[in-house]
Amino acid sequence: MAKTQLADFNTSLSEWFNDVVLKAELADYAPVKGCMVIRPYGYALWESIQQFMDKLIKERGVKNAYFPLFIPMHFLEKEKEHVAGFAPELAVVTIGGGEELTEKLAVRPTSETIMYEMYKKWTSSWRDLPILVNQWCNIVRWEKRTYLFLRTSEFLWQEGHCAHATHEENMDTVMWALNMYEQTYNEHLAIYGIKGKKSNSEKFAGAGDTYTFESLMPNGKSLQSCTSHDLGQNFSKSFDWSVQGKNSEKVYPHQNSWGFSTRSIGGLIMTHGDVNGLVLPPSVAPTQVVIVPIPAHEKASIKAKEISQELKASFRVEVDEREGESAGFKFNKWELKGVPLRIEIGDRDVDGGTVIICRRDTSEKITVPFDKISSIITKLAKEIQTGLLEKHKKFTLDHTFKVDTYDEFKKVMETSRGFISAHWCENPECEAKIKTETLATTRCLPLDAPEEEGNCVGCGGVSTHRWLFGLSY
Amino acid sequence: MAKTQLADFNTSLSEWFNDVVLKAELADYAPVKGCMVIRPYGYALWESIQQFMDKLIKERGVKNAYFPLFIPMHFLEKEKEHVAGFAPELAVVTIGGGEELTEKLAVRPTSETIMYEMYKKWTSSWRDLPILVNQWCNIVRWEKRTYLFLRTSEFLWQEGHCAHATHEENMDTVMWALNMYEQTYNEHLAIYGIKGKKSNSEKFAGAGDTYTFESLMPNGKSLQSCTSHDLGQNFSKSFDWSVQGKNSEKVYPHQNSWGFSTRSIGGLIMTHGDVNGLVLPPSVAPTQVVIVPIPAHEKASIKAKEISQELKASFRVEVDEREGESAGFKFNKWELKGVPLRIEIGDRDVDGGTVIICRRDTSEKITVPFDKISSIITKLAKEIQTGLLEKHKKFTLDHTFKVDTYDEFKKVMETSRGFISAHWCENPECEAKIKTETLATTRCLPLDAPEEEGNCVGCGGVSTHRWLFGLSY
Repeated sequence: MAKTQLADFNTSLSEWFNDVVLKAELADYAPVKGCMVIRPYGYALWESIQQFMDKLIKERGVKNAYFPLFIPMHFLEKEKEHVAGFAPELAVVTIGGGEELTEKLAVRPTSETIMYEMYKKWTSSWRDLPILVNQWCNIVRWEKRTYLFLRTSEFLWQEGHCAHATHEENMDTVMWALNMYEQTYNEHLAIYGIKGKKSNSEKFAGAGDTYTFESLMPNGKSLQSCTSHDLGQNFSKSFDWSVQGKNSEKVYPHQNSWGFSTRSIGGLIMTHGDVNGLVLPPSVAPTQVVIVPIPAHEKASIKAKEISQELKASFRVEVDEREGESAGFKFNKWELKGVPLRIEIGDRDVDGGTVIICRRDTSEKITVPFDKISSIITKLAKEIQTGLLEKHKKFTLDHTFKVDTYDEFKKVMETSRGFISAHWCENPECEAKIKTETLATTRCLPLDAPEEEGNCVGCGGVSTHRWLFGLSY
Repeated sequence: MAKTQLADFNTSLSEWFNDVVLKAELADYAPVKGCMVIRPYGYALWESIQQFMDKLIKERGVKNAYFPLFIPMHFLEKEKEHVAGFAPELAVVTIGGGEELTEKLAVRPTSETIMYEMYKKWTSSWRDLPILVNQWCNIVRWEKRTYLFLRTSEFLWQEGHCAHATHEENMDTVMWALNMYEQTYNEHLAIYGIKGKKSNSEKFAGAGDTYTFESLMPNGKSLQSCTSHDLGQNFSKSFDWSVQGKNSEKVYPHQNSWGFSTRSIGGLIMTHGDVNGLVLPPSVAPTQVVIVPIPAHEKASIKAKEISQELKASFRVEVDEREGESAGFKFNKWELKGVPLRIEIGDRDVDGGTVIICRRDTSEKITVPFDKISSIITKLAKEIQTGLLEKHKKFTLDHTFKVDTYDEFKKVMETSRGFISAHWCENPECEAKIKTETLATTRCLPLDAPEEEGNCVGCGGVSTHRWLFGLSY
């Protein structure tokens, strides 16, 4: 049973999710429908993700920049599929400085169009390529209902936008970005997932191909956790952007874009959570170790500070000395907030020269002598980090169902929920039929899917690969 | 004479400024009037400032968060002076998700109102205070003309918003923020300035008192480089936000806000610039040392990489091996970009075991043996950093004119330009008259201005302190 008043994790994940986000003070509903406030504890998670990824992005030679929030409407209209995809989601500024504007401005839903207009201005020759640019910013895609972190009108993200002289170089960046995202999910957030290519109906508006990292949530739904798009020459041609090639020929640059947003925090919360609240991997946890002296003063408190001082060289540590709250209340609070390791120290422990260390992920408690605290914490932090990833990988594999018939497919959708690995003919009509009848959509063609002869579960037609299907967020 | 085609620094600072911003690739004009694109080289300056300041902000215990971009219009209207100040500058969203909105949304010009609505929701007792929150974000204040970095419709900034139980604690934060800004300007950007209080007519819309850091630019104009506002209880009362005090009394929290924006980069460019372009203090320079091998291959190039490898442990270094560009072209390019130190190395230098090191700020060149490069670079970087600040301080003091009569005041405005230290009666009508007749505005009452009996330069009335006057950006 939950120690804090949370909806049941196993039967009411959505309600549990909202409870945890609000009660752990990760975020709150904003006064404007569809918008959210990211509170300091939630924002610290985003800062940690930014720090991890920004280093990888810079190591690749991609540089950060900042492009304007406002995009003239006619820019968005240059690439037909792009505007068709985004028009219904736009927030539009019609008044500026007290006057009606002659051209309405879209609040950026993504920045391809405004960036490419500038890239065109800045380049004339193949020597000016590649362009390797990223930006961290806010974007707006109108939503009527708010689903904190997972679906909000405004969210934070990074968007990388590179341009290359050749398809090969372009694909190299597309795949680097996808792998960089996988590394962030695996190593930092301890989240497992499947890298793959989206079907035509599920790809980004204006992309040649969209690549995704799909992660399975505890309720068997799939979360599209980031995307990397090969835009081909769609945008450079729409924007009439060409440069002079090595042999004076006209070269339309090949482009890509890749984005990773605060949605990832929604995935993080669900993936590792349990009946008592958040469970954070140590790598991303704003507080990795909390020390609770009992009582919160005198001997135990002095020792708590000593231990904190020692651990601070390697860990993010907090001592909870707040008066007027019981030890039990504090334990629940820090469990709700998902702090990976808790050290309990009482006056008697000080005399005995030991503390109790409690793991958030397994609830395991051990008694540890003073001189071993630092080494045990180091060992446990590593175990938790790798353990959470392994656990999520096992959960994903255990909930991936290989089926060969439509009956089996439907049965999984009705009973088990998870990823379904099935043959599909790649015909969009067949994909639409399966979606209508089962609610399952194609999640991706896994990059490592072997060639395999088979029959489409939908129509029995020829299929060469198994696709992943599932319910999506 | 300038080596790069720039307008004359001494006679045409505005044109020089635009030339440098565009040619050094710091920023560019965006397709939307009033907006700018911050290019990677310019954005790297902002990232460096962010890093420096964010550390100081966190050390104070202030935590980062993120509040929504959109503010319902009726929020802004709650504090009368606030809305009167900002209404003419708003960008307004009237369409969302394809539908006309029932309440128009302002794109945040600053976030007091949206934050305080949430603070009210999150607090009930004095135990919930202080609230110490900061956010890094974009804001919009409509401008018809763009002045890159200095005045743009959208800009980046941090805005700190804290709330305290008492006036004393509140003022402690207001002054801490102002000192933190001064530290950033002095130590990181090598910019000197005067801390002081704004007059009532120049303060922030809704503030009790506004504190500023004013820096003198080479043309004698003053740049308001950041502000820290004591908002008193104006907003808490307007928002009807009270908490229960220690003795169950009703306490309206005391609030402050403090902001520092990309405008600072405009100040940085002008303060240290010269006829050849940017001059960057090493602390903030994205590239601190550039190594130019001549020719850009073979012996000199191999040695250049060796030196680079050694220096990289302590400095941000770039080797310019680009082919097809002459050494002279490269020297000009890196001077334009303000790189503090340049190492030139030719094939003959390799044989002789020496390089030439050239300072950007003084153009001084010295020959240095291989084994002394690292220690000389360390020494020179320190000298440049402190030298630039001292030079700017001297310039400011040399251009601060103490006057006792209106005739002297007007003469300075006509001939010398700079800060004018003069007695003023603190009557806004008198201030307005001086502005109309001389264009000079009150910049601030310096915090260290001693009490001194005198007569107002405008009306001859009683004055107790000298204020600083000047032209402003």
